[in-house]
Amino acid sequence: MRITLAQVNPTVGDLDYNLDMIERVWTEHDTTSDLIVFPELVTTGYPPEDLLHNKQFIRDTENRVEQLMEFSKTKKSAILIGTPQDINGQLYNAALLIGGGKIIGQTAKHHLPNYGVFDEKRYFVSAKDFASIEFMGQKLGVLVCEDMWFPDVASKLKDNGAEILVSLHGSPFEIGKHNRRLTQARARVAETGLPLLYVNQIGGQDDVIYDGSSFIMDKEGNITSQAKPFKEDILSQNSAHHPQPEAEEQIFMAATLGLKDYMRKTGQKQVLIGLSGGIDSALAAAIAVEALGANNVHAIMMPSHFTSQESLDDAADCAKRLDISYEIISIATMVDAFVKDQPETSGLAHENLQSRLRGLTLMTKSNMTGAMVVTTGNKSEMATGYATLYGDMCGGYNPLKDMYKIQVYKVCDWYNETHGDKIPQNIITKKPTAELRPNQTDQDSLPPYDILDGILERLIEHDLSPKEIIDQGFGKETVEKVAHLLKIAQYKRQQSAPGAKITTRAFARERRYPIANGYK
Amino acid sequence: MRITLAQVNPTVGDLDYNLDMIERVWTEHDTTSDLIVFPELVTTGYPPEDLLHNKQFIRDTENRVEQLMEFSKTKKSAILIGTPQDINGQLYNAALLIGGGKIIGQTAKHHLPNYGVFDEKRYFVSAKDFASIEFMGQKLGVLVCEDMWFPDVASKLKDNGAEILVSLHGSPFEIGKHNRRLTQARARVAETGLPLLYVNQIGGQDDVIYDGSSFIMDKEGNITSQAKPFKEDILSQNSAHHPQPEAEEQIFMAATLGLKDYMRKTGQKQVLIGLSGGIDSALAAAIAVEALGANNVHAIMMPSHFTSQESLDDAADCAKRLDISYEIISIATMVDAFVKDQPETSGLAHENLQSRLRGLTLMTKSNMTGAMVVTTGNKSEMATGYATLYGDMCGGYNPLKDMYKIQVYKVCDWYNETHGDKIPQNIITKKPTAELRPNQTDQDSLPPYDILDGILERLIEHDLSPKEIIDQGFGKETVEKVAHLLKIAQYKRQQSAPGAKITTRAFARERRYPIANGYK
Repeated sequence: MRITLAQVNPTVGDLDYNLDMIERVWTEHDTTSDLIVFPELVTTGYPPEDLLHNKQFIRDTENRVEQLMEFSKTKKSAILIGTPQDINGQLYNAALLIGGGKIIGQTAKHHLPNYGVFDEKRYFVSAKDFASIEFMGQKLGVLVCEDMWFPDVASKLKDNGAEILVSLHGSPFEIGKHNRRLTQARARVAETGLPLLYVNQIGGQDDVIYDGSSFIMDKEGNITSQAKPFKEDILSQNSAHHPQPEAEEQIFMAATLGLKDYMRKTGQKQVLIGLSGGIDSALAAAIAVEALGANNVHAIMMPSHFTSQESLDDAADCAKRLDISYEIISIATMVDAFVKDQPETSGLAHENLQSRLRGLTLMTKSNMTGAMVVTTGNKSEMATGYATLYGDMCGGYNPLKDMYKIQVYKVCDWYNETHGDKIPQNIITKKPTAELRPNQTDQDSLPPYDILDGILERLIEHDLSPKEIIDQGFGKETVEKVAHLLKIAQYKRQQSAPGAKITTRAFARERRYPIANGYK
Repeated sequence: MRITLAQVNPTVGDLDYNLDMIERVWTEHDTTSDLIVFPELVTTGYPPEDLLHNKQFIRDTENRVEQLMEFSKTKKSAILIGTPQDINGQLYNAALLIGGGKIIGQTAKHHLPNYGVFDEKRYFVSAKDFASIEFMGQKLGVLVCEDMWFPDVASKLKDNGAEILVSLHGSPFEIGKHNRRLTQARARVAETGLPLLYVNQIGGQDDVIYDGSSFIMDKEGNITSQAKPFKEDILSQNSAHHPQPEAEEQIFMAATLGLKDYMRKTGQKQVLIGLSGGIDSALAAAIAVEALGANNVHAIMMPSHFTSQESLDDAADCAKRLDISYEIISIATMVDAFVKDQPETSGLAHENLQSRLRGLTLMTKSNMTGAMVVTTGNKSEMATGYATLYGDMCGGYNPLKDMYKIQVYKVCDWYNETHGDKIPQNIITKKPTAELRPNQTDQDSLPPYDILDGILERLIEHDLSPKEIIDQGFGKETVEKVAHLLKIAQYKRQQSAPGAKITTRAFARERRYPIANGYK
């Protein structure tokens, strides 16, 4: 049997787009395939969230499945798709094998993930049945996503005659995730002695990014071919093997796809970025150029009295190297006008005032032009609250939201090496500063970023206690300060823009914390 | 057996506060009780969210349980408390009966709610055991919250000898919720022939408000006594019966407790409110006065060129009647300075500019004084995006977030009737307007609020499709416009402040929608 894996990019909720996409791929690969396999919930996109509670949405999805059944009459091959299926008022995360005008076979997900970014027990019930699906005289053992991560389903499918494992996924990207997928796939192959075909979607959906990296594993556990990461691709037995790129490239691609798809899927084309001469906005601009093209990225430098000539030079140089339009709008007169009206404004209020006048300037420009503001606070800033609410936190999407500052540096280095120093070297090597008061640097308020990020990763990704981190050799005062900042900045994160998940524990969907929280 | 129900107000994460609270109530009622019953997860507060994933948090909670066991040696009565319990690496939502220095009996929750505001399958495993707990020669059938909402647990407890049902809750308020609780309780009583004691917590925890309303139901299904709503209270067989107040009073109490506890539990005392002369900010100010006292509420009127004398008079009159400090800070010169710098600013951008300069003014004041900004967009506005991101949406908490505009009017009427016209009648009767351009009224952009709210309630709470709503007699064009606005405003709601849940489906925690959403 000739099986083709379709690594596609559905849009959540856009049932017609997803239907057209399936039909287009089907038509293109009909003559060279017996079966074309699409990802989990490809009809609806993943995750549809509470759209799944809307009965009309489920009816509309069922209607698209009927259209695919009708369409299948004109095709010689069959398709295997993921789709929600309502059976007697209970919703399943199902896989349907459709061909010759009918549903040839079906199964559904047994293990419903309800951790991390996932809430599937909010929507679905578990399948109870472990039948394999017979097609062209061969028995397929179909796994839906999480079912590949446990031994029981594959093993029962094998008991029920399965000769090959076919696994449909909506598996979000994070650093190191693909190796964990391969480990699980190898375990299932070793347990059953069956080859395994893995198809994942690609695309950005709000915070979650799918990297694809679909693969075919033979019954010895060798990858015979693997699809391109972060790109639509078609995989069959004869396809090339695309290895995973290094970590920095993966991060860059994830953030780029996140921004690109957020724009496309919300019907937007152009972005504005406040370019400060610092590293975060420089990288965000580079990502935006990669995602949208240089002609869709507009940079605005908004100096105040505290902005150095060095920052002005670096910002202008960066815009020039990235070949994006660049404009300077000073906020100095606005700051002066405000302080003249309210002369008591000082200290942190005066610093935030500058940041908020920049936000106001960008948002006004956004309202006038229809271009979306990209916000650029990295994970170290989001964690510690080193960002101004309604100031530099203004914006529709944040490609850096889940990148630690240390990662930002590494990604910049990788980007410059591979793209020819488009980010001025001085931006990477100079001391980071918010320039909201004279001679300020980030390290006036925060520990050095290598220390800070080490502590934050232990607090967030590893969920260690301050005491455990101190026992690992970090300074007591520093750890306790960082843990306190992380806790009290929750109210800011609650009002932050969505951004691309990169790590194993992104804020918001994957780290759900109370704001009013008395835990010390 | 003399059983006392302790309707208390724990703080999420504040283990020492909650421990002290339990010990204090225990001491106060020790001599008049044999058993004192506390709400679900009273040691941690509810919902602790991802704190439950932190192992040190669980260890610290277990330590507080050990302290209670030690404390129990000094007491003649016992307590029944809700607390997370780790048994061999699996976490249960448990109930422990503690007395005489030990755990006398224990059970845990079987039905884990994973819908609406609840994510319990993210944290807990289901209890498998249905034993009753023997205490003083009597068998208690202990239900943990959701277990009261299904017949099986109470029925099996009865089979296992239970002579009385004792039910521990963390049951969030919403309009109509208490009647549904009573219906379920009566069903359990009818099925088992046993009396039922229901203890719920009170308090605000970010978006979720608990109303208490604990009650004792005899085996005929009569309520013999019921605790005060929205207040800490102690209930025993001899207590008075406090009936539920009317809907408007419930809403007012919920929003008040939500704001009050958000402030207290985040260590804040004072608030700033932008008073526009409109009904939303007037009601928000009244709520803040009730929650925090008039001397902790500061109102700022921020007129622009489009602010009418009527609005200035109404705002001043409102502040005077509420006896709160009041200040006028014109944004007109700032608007002029901005437009002079950037003369192309017009239309929606010019409207948003005014709203954002008000937000900036309030936030600067907030930074200078430490007072938190209260934001006041009602549910109709949050739903349709009729609010400016980083403008009037600035603020730490929104007591009106889940009140439809029609509810705002009704609550104002109730408030004036019971509090002596503290909100000027003209604010209630005049046409609502944002005053961001000449002669603007809300109804230039939105359908009349009774129509709008009728449509929104059907889209949100009833999850009906536009077609179903049109079939009920609403205008096609209007319904489709409102449905579209609801969809495209998701990005604004993602960045909105938390606020008090009032309805059966509050935004954010209870209506989880994608921003990039192609569903038409």
